[in-house]
Amino acid sequence: MGKFYSKDFDEMEKFYRAKFINSLSGIKSANLVGTVDENGQENLSIVSSVVHIGANPALMAIIFRPATVPRHTFENIRDTKVFTINHVKSDFFKKAHQTSARYEKSMSEFEAVGLNTDYVEGVEAPFVKESLLKIGLKLREIIHLDINKTELVIGEVMFVDVADNYIEEDGYIDIEALGSVGVTGLDSYHELKEATRLSYAKPGQEVKEL
Amino acid sequence: MGKFYSKDFDEMEKFYRAKFINSLSGIKSANLVGTVDENGQENLSIVSSVVHIGANPALMAIIFRPATVPRHTFENIRDTKVFTINHVKSDFFKKAHQTSARYEKSMSEFEAVGLNTDYVEGVEAPFVKESLLKIGLKLREIIHLDINKTELVIGEVMFVDVADNYIEEDGYIDIEALGSVGVTGLDSYHELKEATRLSYAKPGQEVKEL
Repeated sequence: MGKFYSKDFDEMEKFYRAKFINSLSGIKSANLVGTVDENGQENLSIVSSVVHIGANPALMAIIFRPATVPRHTFENIRDTKVFTINHVKSDFFKKAHQTSARYEKSMSEFEAVGLNTDYVEGVEAPFVKESLLKIGLKLREIIHLDINKTELVIGEVMFVDVADNYIEEDGYIDIEALGSVGVTGLDSYHELKEATRLSYAKPGQEVKEL
Repeated sequence: MGKFYSKDFDEMEKFYRAKFINSLSGIKSANLVGTVDENGQENLSIVSSVVHIGANPALMAIIFRPATVPRHTFENIRDTKVFTINHVKSDFFKKAHQTSARYEKSMSEFEAVGLNTDYVEGVEAPFVKESLLKIGLKLREIIHLDINKTELVIGEVMFVDVADNYIEEDGYIDIEALGSVGVTGLDSYHELKEATRLSYAKPGQEVKEL
């Protein structure tokens, strides 16, 4: 059996360790983050660290890596205070992955990988036209995590574009029907099987499939 | 087409809004968090807000809701400084969901839902025996997010239990083979389809399936 302790992590080769530890958090959402710099230069970057913070106000956050790597997306959000989150659909996940290559800052990843921009009034950052769930956010707060020099970037949702027919009666958006993919580790993409919705859980009462 | 702005969110009924906004972050990992209070009373709680913070040191975080709801798990981690994260497997996801019912603090959710505890030397919190990927963490930091009164709880991984045959040559853990499920919104559980692993992306070079 594989039982690993801290000292075992320390003995792992650097990239092995990164892949092993990155796997632990399980399935994550694959999203493309669209930004511009102060000169309007567009940038697009795949991230797997989007997290729901709260529904009212509507807040989402992204974890960004330390400044030891280029962080155009982080810098653009910090400078322009606006960004978009676009679900990656199964028919363009390879293009989405390609945005993780280290392009020069002067190169738009939209062009480089062959995805189209889409702009909406009131949101000064580019959306991915091909995405079926597009979210526009304004920066609310950047929290520097001193523990490992990463940044927690919190945005407030100011705009959502999703076709009505994917929204169920109670407000739930059918992520699987949208074709949104998940990612595990650093590079493994998954389509989603059909969901099983469960009833609100109460003590002493069996949960039911809805 | 469904274009929604901030004012539209404000007009949504409270639970509709919660389900809609919760859907935006896409697929998330379903995990059970095991804790004890200072008297050894066991607690088990399903969470969908686990996020990878970094590989070295090995850090993971969980977002907890504001104190307006009972937060036994959060209080236990704060008080005892230790917790476990256990992947939810497809054959017990209903039991996992049932832990979200509001049990009294004196009731162990392990017993209430019919899952078994497992203890490992050096980790003073219970694991879920049925889980195929078990992670033991020590509390490193609690960051109060004043913006909406949630808490970001950062733990350092000190122990991992996963069968060797799920670990690939390069350190990646095959989450789909483990049967780990994802969750969208508040209550929709998904099994994962087989992964497509993609090569490391470089400018001007097409990504390949591994």
